[in-house]
Amino acid sequence: MIAKTPTPPYYAVIFTSIRTEVQEGYEVTADLMVEIAQQQEGFLGMESARDGIGITVSYWKDLESIRKWKANSDHLTAQKMGREKWYEGYTTRIARVEREYSF
Amino acid sequence: MIAKTPTPPYYAVIFTSIRTEVQEGYEVTADLMVEIAQQQEGFLGMESARDGIGITVSYWKDLESIRKWKANSDHLTAQKMGREKWYEGYTTRIARVEREYSF
Repeated sequence: MIAKTPTPPYYAVIFTSIRTEVQEGYEVTADLMVEIAQQQEGFLGMESARDGIGITVSYWKDLESIRKWKANSDHLTAQKMGREKWYEGYTTRIARVEREYSF
Repeated sequence: MIAKTPTPPYYAVIFTSIRTEVQEGYEVTADLMVEIAQQQEGFLGMESARDGIGITVSYWKDLESIRKWKANSDHLTAQKMGREKWYEGYTTRIARVEREYSF
């Protein structure tokens, strides 16, 4: 689903990743992270697709919401396990959305 | 492939789309658009994945590069055909990347 976001400005976290072959614990943790993110203050929506590379874009009200989400303790644990098991590599980009248009 | 982008700031165009079932002309046009984008001044990289929704993020040096790419005549034709044939719906977001970190 395309996220329904408010009129800019707001923020996007663009998370691009390459997976390892390790499946153990991945799906359940990924689902849990989506659930927890949705409960965070300032969460505006999320879009995700994977084929070859994975791209997950989450949208946030402001940088403070992103900072809190990054520091969430379950999320910190998942980030650590991600680096140890599930991801070959990833890049996270924090960006300020300035314009948006839809068809 | 995860795009190798320079130290921020730079810009991201986040294009999220839902396809129709029309295949005719889609692949060849999509490939051509990637090729043309890569030749544009200020193009820094691109990441793309589709499963259910499609997410393509292209990275650019500045807003002026994005404006020129948006106005490229082959791209304008592709945008029009996209609305008429290939896309059920899409959202384009222009965002300024402020921070980036990789693993």
